[in-house]
Amino acid sequence: MTLRYFYKKITDLEILHYQKDFINYLESKKWVNEPKNLYEPIDYILKLGGKRMRPILTLMAADIFSGGYEKAMPAALAIEVFHNFTLIHDDIMDDAPLRRGKVTVHEKWDLNTGILSGDAMLILAYQYFENYEPIVFQKLAKLFSKTALEVCDGQQLDVDFETRNDVTIDEYINMIRLKTSVLVAAALKMGAIVVETSEENANLIYDFGLNLGLAFQLQDDYLDTFGDPKTFGKQIGGDIIENKKTFLYLKSLDIACEEDKNKLSVFYNQNLKENSIKIKEVTQIFEQNNIPFLIKEQIKSYTEKAFETLNSMDITEKNKESLKNFGLWLMNRTV
Amino acid sequence: MTLRYFYKKITDLEILHYQKDFINYLESKKWVNEPKNLYEPIDYILKLGGKRMRPILTLMAADIFSGGYEKAMPAALAIEVFHNFTLIHDDIMDDAPLRRGKVTVHEKWDLNTGILSGDAMLILAYQYFENYEPIVFQKLAKLFSKTALEVCDGQQLDVDFETRNDVTIDEYINMIRLKTSVLVAAALKMGAIVVETSEENANLIYDFGLNLGLAFQLQDDYLDTFGDPKTFGKQIGGDIIENKKTFLYLKSLDIACEEDKNKLSVFYNQNLKENSIKIKEVTQIFEQNNIPFLIKEQIKSYTEKAFETLNSMDITEKNKESLKNFGLWLMNRTV
Repeated sequence: MTLRYFYKKITDLEILHYQKDFINYLESKKWVNEPKNLYEPIDYILKLGGKRMRPILTLMAADIFSGGYEKAMPAALAIEVFHNFTLIHDDIMDDAPLRRGKVTVHEKWDLNTGILSGDAMLILAYQYFENYEPIVFQKLAKLFSKTALEVCDGQQLDVDFETRNDVTIDEYINMIRLKTSVLVAAALKMGAIVVETSEENANLIYDFGLNLGLAFQLQDDYLDTFGDPKTFGKQIGGDIIENKKTFLYLKSLDIACEEDKNKLSVFYNQNLKENSIKIKEVTQIFEQNNIPFLIKEQIKSYTEKAFETLNSMDITEKNKESLKNFGLWLMNRTV
Repeated sequence: MTLRYFYKKITDLEILHYQKDFINYLESKKWVNEPKNLYEPIDYILKLGGKRMRPILTLMAADIFSGGYEKAMPAALAIEVFHNFTLIHDDIMDDAPLRRGKVTVHEKWDLNTGILSGDAMLILAYQYFENYEPIVFQKLAKLFSKTALEVCDGQQLDVDFETRNDVTIDEYINMIRLKTSVLVAAALKMGAIVVETSEENANLIYDFGLNLGLAFQLQDDYLDTFGDPKTFGKQIGGDIIENKKTFLYLKSLDIACEEDKNKLSVFYNQNLKENSIKIKEVTQIFEQNNIPFLIKEQIKSYTEKAFETLNSMDITEKNKESLKNFGLWLMNRTV
C-alpha cells in the first residue's frame, strides 16, 4: 500500500509517538552480524526510512485494546522486517533501480545478495515472535504465515494480470486485498493478539484494516489519475503510462461503449515515450464514463464497511473515535 | 549435503519404509492451488525425486524415541519443503541449468517465479508446524528459524570464500557446519521434539547429526578427488576443476612446502577447458602431503564424536545399535 501522504501529515494525528518509539526500537537493535555481506543489506534497507505505517498500526491496536503498546514492539518489528523483505524481492522482480530515492539492494550489491538477504529477513521476522509465550507465539506465527502466503499469492496475481486481458473487477479487488490489505489487517490484529484482547475484537480490527486497506488502495488508484499534481507525490497518470489494469481501467471496460473500449485497449497496448496525449485521452474516457464517481462510491463503501466493524468492537467510545479519525484522516487526503 | 550413495543402498538398511511412507504423505498433499503460476513450480520441485534424506532422519528420530513416527510426518514435510526452497534459490544463485537431471525452476519458468515460489515454500514450511500444539509448535519453529538462518549464513560464507584467499580450516569447517550439518542435526532433533522425549535426548541427537553431518561432508570432499570413478556418482576431480577450497586444498596450503603451495595457488586461479593435467597434478600434491590420511583422521574423529553422544542417550541398546549402524553405513560407502 502506497501511503503517500502519511508522513507529511503524520503530525496531524496523535500517532507520532508510535513512530518515534518504533524507530528508536528498530535502531537499538544490532542488525549487522557475521557474515557481514548477508546482514549489511538488511541494515541498509531497514534504515532507508519509510513511514513505518505497518508497525505503527500494530502499536496503535495494542494501545487501543490495552492502554499500552510496549509489549507489541517485537511483533511490530516482525511486520516491518517482513515488509522490507517483500520490498527487496519485489524490487528484483520489477528490476527497480531505486527505493525511497536510494539504490535498491540488488543494484547496490547484486542479485544473489538481494535474494539471500531477503530470505534471511523472512526468517528473522518469525524470530521476533519468539519474545512471546507459546500460545501468543503460535497465534502470531499462524496469522503471519497465512498473511505472508497471501502476499505471495497477491504478488503472483499482479504479475499474471499483466499479460491477461480478461481480468474482472472482482479479481482485481481480490488481488489488491491479497497484495496489500491483508498485511494492514494482520498488522492491526497482531497488536490485538499481543495484548490478549478477545478473539472477537481481534477479528473486528482485522476486518477494519482489511476494508480500510481496500479503500485506501482504490483511492490510490483514483489519485494516480485524478489527484492534484501539486500535492500528489508522483507523476499524475503513472498507472496509465504503465498500462496498469486498475479499477479505473477495468470498470471502464465493463461499462463503456465499444468505441471507448477499443480506444482504451489500443492505448493500453502502447509503450510510448511521450504520454501526454495518452493520459489526456484515457482520462477523458474515464470521465465520460463516470468512473471517478463510481470509484469514489466504492471507496466510500469500503470505508463505511471498515467503520461498521467499530460498532461491535468492545472498546471505549473514545478509542472508537480515535480509530475512526485515523481512518477519516487516511481517506480524506486533500488532493 | 550430497548423499550420493544414499538411494542406491537404502535397501541395505531398514529405513526404506520411512522413505516410502514419507513419499506417500508428500504425494497425498494437494500442492497446486491458485495462483497456479506460484504453486506449479512448488509441485514440480517437490516431485523431482531425491533421496528424502532429511525427512527420513526426522521420522527415524521420532521412531527411536517413541516407537512410532506417524506424528512426525508434518515436521518431516516442513524440513523437505525448506530443503527444496534452498535448492530453488541456490540454483538461481549458482545459475544452475539442471537439478536432479531435470531443468531447474528458474530455467523452466523464469527468475521471478523462482524467487517467489521459493519464498512461498519457506512460509509453507512454517505452516506444517501448525499441526502441533503450542509448546511443541514453538520449539519446532524456534529450532527451524535458528537453523534456516544458519543455512543462509553458511550459503553467504560459501559465496564469500570464493573470492577470499585467506580462508582457514576452522572457517571452512564452520561454513560446512552451517551450510549443511545444522539441517541434518535439526531434522533429527525435530523428530525428538515431536514425540516429546527429554530435552537431553533431543540435544544429544542434534549433536549426533551435527558431527555425522560434518564427517559426511568431509568424506564427500575426499571422495570427490579420491573416490572410485566406477562407483562415484559424478566426475572425479569436480571440486578441483571448480577451484573449490575444500578441506583437501586448505590443509595442503597449511602444511605443504612453498613450491607446492605456489603450484596449488596457480592451479586454483585457472579455469581450463581441459583439466586432466590439473586434476593429476593437484591430486599428487594432496597425496605427497599426506592429505588423504589427514582428512580420514578428521572424518573418523567426527564420526566417533557422533557415536559418543549415543552413550549418554536414554534409549534402548537396540536403538543405539540402529543409529550406529546407520552412521557406519553412511560413512563406510565403498568407493
